[in-house]
Amino acid sequence: MAAPASQSPLTLIPLSEAELARLVGSGEDLLELACLDALFPTGKLLRPTLCIESARAVGGRAESVLSFAAGIECLHVASPVHDDIVDQDPMRRGRASTAERFGIAEALLAGDGLYTAGWVAMLHGSPADRVLQASQAVAEAMHAMCRSSMHETTIREDLSCGRSAVLKVIRGKTATLTGAACQAGAILAAATPGHAEALRQYGEVLGTALQIRDDLLPYTVHERITGKHAISDVANRQPTRPVLLAYESADDHDRRLLTRVFHGDTDPTRAHRDLLDVLTRTGAIAETTGQAQDCVTQARAALDGLPSTERLAQLADSTVDRHH
Amino acid sequence: MAAPASQSPLTLIPLSEAELARLVGSGEDLLELACLDALFPTGKLLRPTLCIESARAVGGRAESVLSFAAGIECLHVASPVHDDIVDQDPMRRGRASTAERFGIAEALLAGDGLYTAGWVAMLHGSPADRVLQASQAVAEAMHAMCRSSMHETTIREDLSCGRSAVLKVIRGKTATLTGAACQAGAILAAATPGHAEALRQYGEVLGTALQIRDDLLPYTVHERITGKHAISDVANRQPTRPVLLAYESADDHDRRLLTRVFHGDTDPTRAHRDLLDVLTRTGAIAETTGQAQDCVTQARAALDGLPSTERLAQLADSTVDRHH
Repeated sequence: MAAPASQSPLTLIPLSEAELARLVGSGEDLLELACLDALFPTGKLLRPTLCIESARAVGGRAESVLSFAAGIECLHVASPVHDDIVDQDPMRRGRASTAERFGIAEALLAGDGLYTAGWVAMLHGSPADRVLQASQAVAEAMHAMCRSSMHETTIREDLSCGRSAVLKVIRGKTATLTGAACQAGAILAAATPGHAEALRQYGEVLGTALQIRDDLLPYTVHERITGKHAISDVANRQPTRPVLLAYESADDHDRRLLTRVFHGDTDPTRAHRDLLDVLTRTGAIAETTGQAQDCVTQARAALDGLPSTERLAQLADSTVDRHH
Repeated sequence: MAAPASQSPLTLIPLSEAELARLVGSGEDLLELACLDALFPTGKLLRPTLCIESARAVGGRAESVLSFAAGIECLHVASPVHDDIVDQDPMRRGRASTAERFGIAEALLAGDGLYTAGWVAMLHGSPADRVLQASQAVAEAMHAMCRSSMHETTIREDLSCGRSAVLKVIRGKTATLTGAACQAGAILAAATPGHAEALRQYGEVLGTALQIRDDLLPYTVHERITGKHAISDVANRQPTRPVLLAYESADDHDRRLLTRVFHGDTDPTRAHRDLLDVLTRTGAIAETTGQAQDCVTQARAALDGLPSTERLAQLADSTVDRHH
């Protein structure tokens, strides 16, 4: 972790990891093995961290939301396990995807198993009214995620779909769940409705910032760091925000170039170089980076008036320094 | 419906259908369209019926558990939508499967969308403590379902896996959720723990009976009625209970014949005829039919001492007359 993040409570990571392992079992059958393989080594554990820190921000204790937070991570990890079946992407976080390691049928069931393990974990807390309300927030976010993923399948290869369509997909696929993770943590810690809503907003703009940064990664750092092929956006023919911004402000020559790349008519290495050229030339990279920074500013503003927000503020700041 | 079932409250079906349509939306986007296509025309709506009738059996009202009951149906329908991706089965209930009509990626998301719509519906009831307890029962059943489906992938083509392995899969894939549907209905209607447990047991043995009857369908009625190809068990190389019973009591010649069929070395029409011959010769069909009847007897026994069980008793009886 970079300097700002290192000031956040590192003990949360092993706590969350231990809880995740407790939730899905010790690998006694194929379902547990596939779930453990999908969960570990863990990623950044952003959603459980957001859930726990949101509870703390309104005076709650980490321990009392830990199981719920780990449950959200299970739901979150289930999505890419299923996405990799759809995208036929053999890599995830620098290693073989669950579909690649266990097979399509098994990955499908591992994703379902992570969903259900997540719900079992989330629903086993108390008091009942708060657990139920927090669970409702997460269920609605998950449904919005499905809707956005389905919407995404309809705009594949469509460079003229416009940035608002992509923004809607980004919000649904990423920001809604990070928002719900914060909101749920706040609700579980008996936050006022106003504080819970402020934390939901914080989580949503932070999620948007992180998604924008992920979209920029293929054009800013080496793929070894991202763990995904830098050219996977091209391979998936999925227009991202920087690509759409470039398309909107490109001249006819560059539009034709982008269209060729997204129709798969260019070899991958050349496609990536062409994309990078057009995105730099049109200022799309700089503009998208600016948008991520605006989101971080909004995230910090959402924290105004909350009791104890130091760690959440650090978390927001650290997103513009590096990917989380 | 056959005579016994016609005495059960037919008004439950349109009520449940209307609630399902309300839950998943009116088809305004691709997710809603795919979910509606998977749900309608509905099947037997067994799980919502069990949930509602279990609530009534302990003095509850249908209206107060309707949304929860419809939510369970969404979860239930999600599983075959995903299963058909795994099995590459183009047919479901006599028409094209969701995967066949909408594509693999879209079917995957439709299944996820049905799961999440189900959870949204189930979690939006009151009072919180009962909704939470009922939801826990359903979440645990769903997790058991995933575990069993994964287990099933490991016994594919394995005729020597033994009937206890298959029984465990049947219980996990079918009976656990029918049991939880009954248990949840009872909990929502403020049943005593003893009554909720009795209704869970009723639902489990009823689910087992229905699964056994489904396993027998390819050998007892024409595939036009089942809506699935009679030979799909063979095509999927999935040993069912009657097949395993036949294998256990078959002589060497018949065992070799079953093995050839399950290794896909026989053309489908001949495979089905060979299977039917061996299953009849070994008495496996008669024995399996007897087991289904035993389950119905157990289901009726589980109802002893409950306040109002006429409809649940009818439902149990009707399973041995025809498939539900």
